[in-house]
Amino acid sequence: MAAGLNSADGALAARLPEGVLREVAPAYLEEPRGRWPGRAGLVAAPRDADECAAVIRACADARVAVVPRGGGTGLVGGQVMPDGPAPLVLSLERMAAIRAIFPDEGVMIAEAGTTLQAAREAAQAAGLQFPLSLASQGTAQLGGVLSTNAGGVNVLRHGNARALCLGIEAVLPAGEVMHDLKRLRKDNTGYDLRDLLIGAEGTLGVITAASLVLAPVPAETGVAMLVVESPEAALRLLGLAQARMAGGVTGFELISGQGLRFLDEALPQIRQPFAARPDWLVLVEIGLPEGLSADAALEGLFEAGVGAGLVGDGVIARSGQQAAEFWALREHIPLANRAIGAIASHDISLPLSEIAGFIRDAGDWLAGQEEMRINCFGHLGDGNLHYNLFPAKGRDRAEYDAIRSGLSRHLHQMVVARGGSFSAEHGVGRLKVADLERWGDPARLRAMRAIKQALDPAGIMNPGAVLG
Amino acid sequence: MAAGLNSADGALAARLPEGVLREVAPAYLEEPRGRWPGRAGLVAAPRDADECAAVIRACADARVAVVPRGGGTGLVGGQVMPDGPAPLVLSLERMAAIRAIFPDEGVMIAEAGTTLQAAREAAQAAGLQFPLSLASQGTAQLGGVLSTNAGGVNVLRHGNARALCLGIEAVLPAGEVMHDLKRLRKDNTGYDLRDLLIGAEGTLGVITAASLVLAPVPAETGVAMLVVESPEAALRLLGLAQARMAGGVTGFELISGQGLRFLDEALPQIRQPFAARPDWLVLVEIGLPEGLSADAALEGLFEAGVGAGLVGDGVIARSGQQAAEFWALREHIPLANRAIGAIASHDISLPLSEIAGFIRDAGDWLAGQEEMRINCFGHLGDGNLHYNLFPAKGRDRAEYDAIRSGLSRHLHQMVVARGGSFSAEHGVGRLKVADLERWGDPARLRAMRAIKQALDPAGIMNPGAVLG
Repeated sequence: MAAGLNSADGALAARLPEGVLREVAPAYLEEPRGRWPGRAGLVAAPRDADECAAVIRACADARVAVVPRGGGTGLVGGQVMPDGPAPLVLSLERMAAIRAIFPDEGVMIAEAGTTLQAAREAAQAAGLQFPLSLASQGTAQLGGVLSTNAGGVNVLRHGNARALCLGIEAVLPAGEVMHDLKRLRKDNTGYDLRDLLIGAEGTLGVITAASLVLAPVPAETGVAMLVVESPEAALRLLGLAQARMAGGVTGFELISGQGLRFLDEALPQIRQPFAARPDWLVLVEIGLPEGLSADAALEGLFEAGVGAGLVGDGVIARSGQQAAEFWALREHIPLANRAIGAIASHDISLPLSEIAGFIRDAGDWLAGQEEMRINCFGHLGDGNLHYNLFPAKGRDRAEYDAIRSGLSRHLHQMVVARGGSFSAEHGVGRLKVADLERWGDPARLRAMRAIKQALDPAGIMNPGAVLG
Repeated sequence: MAAGLNSADGALAARLPEGVLREVAPAYLEEPRGRWPGRAGLVAAPRDADECAAVIRACADARVAVVPRGGGTGLVGGQVMPDGPAPLVLSLERMAAIRAIFPDEGVMIAEAGTTLQAAREAAQAAGLQFPLSLASQGTAQLGGVLSTNAGGVNVLRHGNARALCLGIEAVLPAGEVMHDLKRLRKDNTGYDLRDLLIGAEGTLGVITAASLVLAPVPAETGVAMLVVESPEAALRLLGLAQARMAGGVTGFELISGQGLRFLDEALPQIRQPFAARPDWLVLVEIGLPEGLSADAALEGLFEAGVGAGLVGDGVIARSGQQAAEFWALREHIPLANRAIGAIASHDISLPLSEIAGFIRDAGDWLAGQEEMRINCFGHLGDGNLHYNLFPAKGRDRAEYDAIRSGLSRHLHQMVVARGGSFSAEHGVGRLKVADLERWGDPARLRAMRAIKQALDPAGIMNPGAVLG
């Protein structure tokens, strides 16, 4: 946290552009898990990048912290500042225009306050897709999605938010607008500041608009749920699917029997495809060129999987509605988790060949701790697991308070030892600052601090996030 | 250029790790176009990242400039330092090991001195592909390929070098090793220093090894040459191909009649598929999943193209050898250009929907200048054109000396006005420092300088490249 910051107050308010202030409402101060009490002296919602720059210049002059705010759906506390003098919350809500769509180029230029859902619908209306999809897409905004380099369910084929961004317009900490909204697939003219701001969680500036990649909609799509006996079998099935479909695998999600039982417990209205709850299953989604049948391809994969001893049972969605039901099952797992109430959640990634070993070793280690339930699920194709711990049946999460941080630290240590990451897609925010300190490469951390100091010497941009 | 630098000399040599020095041979001082006379007081070739760090620490202490050197194939002078005190040339040639391949993950860890060709062959031996391909791949090294974010012929499907890199090991200007050789598809733990070093052309540190993405080899591949009447028709054909093949278009190269006539003139042994030289043709390469016939897909594309009035004639490669011949034709165009001798070359990119207009307007404008020949070709699917100017038949390039820089500046101005880039894939190097000054966004340039100053306060890393 930078020293010498002031609270946002009336004197600062008087220096802001006309009409940018909003009431300091609770909606600007919350985060989904309710861990951190957000605070704000002022809330400003600029209408364009120049107004945004004026707000940041005024804050820089007054040495007031700025907390950029999108949809507020982040899970690591990057959108609230619980400590220090009350900041100015900079809401992007009034910059929500889709400025242009270039269907022939597969490019959309949209402002940071656009919800992911609105961006996806605009792409669809142009006959294309914006292939980034999250459970929270109705609320999450593009600025936040980019600032946290969000992932989601299509990363396997289309990459993280970073891979879908060709250019940005951003306001840097000095209050200058960086105009770099290029629509180019190739542009090697100097340092990659776009990727530096993407994933910087608002600590190096504020993204106000972006030039985004739209992808063709595959001619044929299909979804199946396949029962596998282990995560290892799931990974071998993934290899099989990729070898057969040359980039046509668009989603590959691992679901555990525990996750299915949580759905039974918390959301019994969700239809499940298998009467008995298997230990493990995968949701496979494919997108294929014209001339291929998705059904036939999934049947072929099923048969090959059975033949290789990887797949025990399976069901292929026979309609768009059934496909949507399969996805709904997957998307409701976090809601069921929330209803059950986790002891600790871990958004980890591992090299693909380390996943099965990690799941085995972590399970073995946890079996020697307090009794609990593990729901391990996630974007297996990306090596990204949500490894979440829950109280044993009939017990309360509060009973685990004393061991919670030790559990997480040990699990993260196991992940890091296997070359994995303690934050795959959620970012660092405020939750994982100490983890980054502990496990980040020292040279990399020093370089990060040097860059933060160089671009934001007064330390006004989202202080306390990413770098403590 | 940083002030206060010294020449690399015997006193520095005595402080370097045992055995790293090489003879100052001409091969360390050359660049392909012979524009800049390279110089070196010392040449050091470390065997690992720690030795590399020791060399850079010694140079930092002695205030001696370091010019990192890979295969030396760059076209913008980033690999030579013609001005100022003689630098130390840091050759990565002895760091050429493929450290590991993880076929199940689709990941290879290779050192910076590995040639692109060797990396491609290692991937192939593992049953996969490293999908970055350049004419100079037998000489170009991975470190240079990454430091310049090289492109090539597969960008349409697989992206630039940046998109194929999961992690790097690098030595930062302070002489520290940054260990970040992750094999992860998702890792949101702080600022993206990997992408900052990629494309920084050795000015922010030296990449010593990288974790690279290997892709499955498509089950079915095919190549065709299709005659189109205009660049506009070529772009509409690209849209058609992408809509039909859902990511299956792996290459889409534009070739001009002028390029074909240069091949006739300079390399008559190259076989051409059409007896009459068409004004424009495209080379289309596709990679498809199991179950589809590439021949049938290309025939379908040809028929659809004819039906839409876009394609006049075409030939589909009927064997791997014929496919290789088609690519050889494309790859020999730069050699024919060199034999003819260009007045000026432009490595530009444009938003796809601006390409046809640019080619028309640039041709019109040039028609009002001195008589000359235009060879416009390139990676059309990426919006990347090599727009090169040649003397009229029977005239010498020296006759154009007086107008050369004015021509380039005007053409670049036309590109920038259409939202394009004056350096699509070759980088800035020393050739385009003034262009970056002229056309770069001022806020972005200030941020670049601040980052350079923060990470390399003594200005020892490749001074004079990228930022003058």
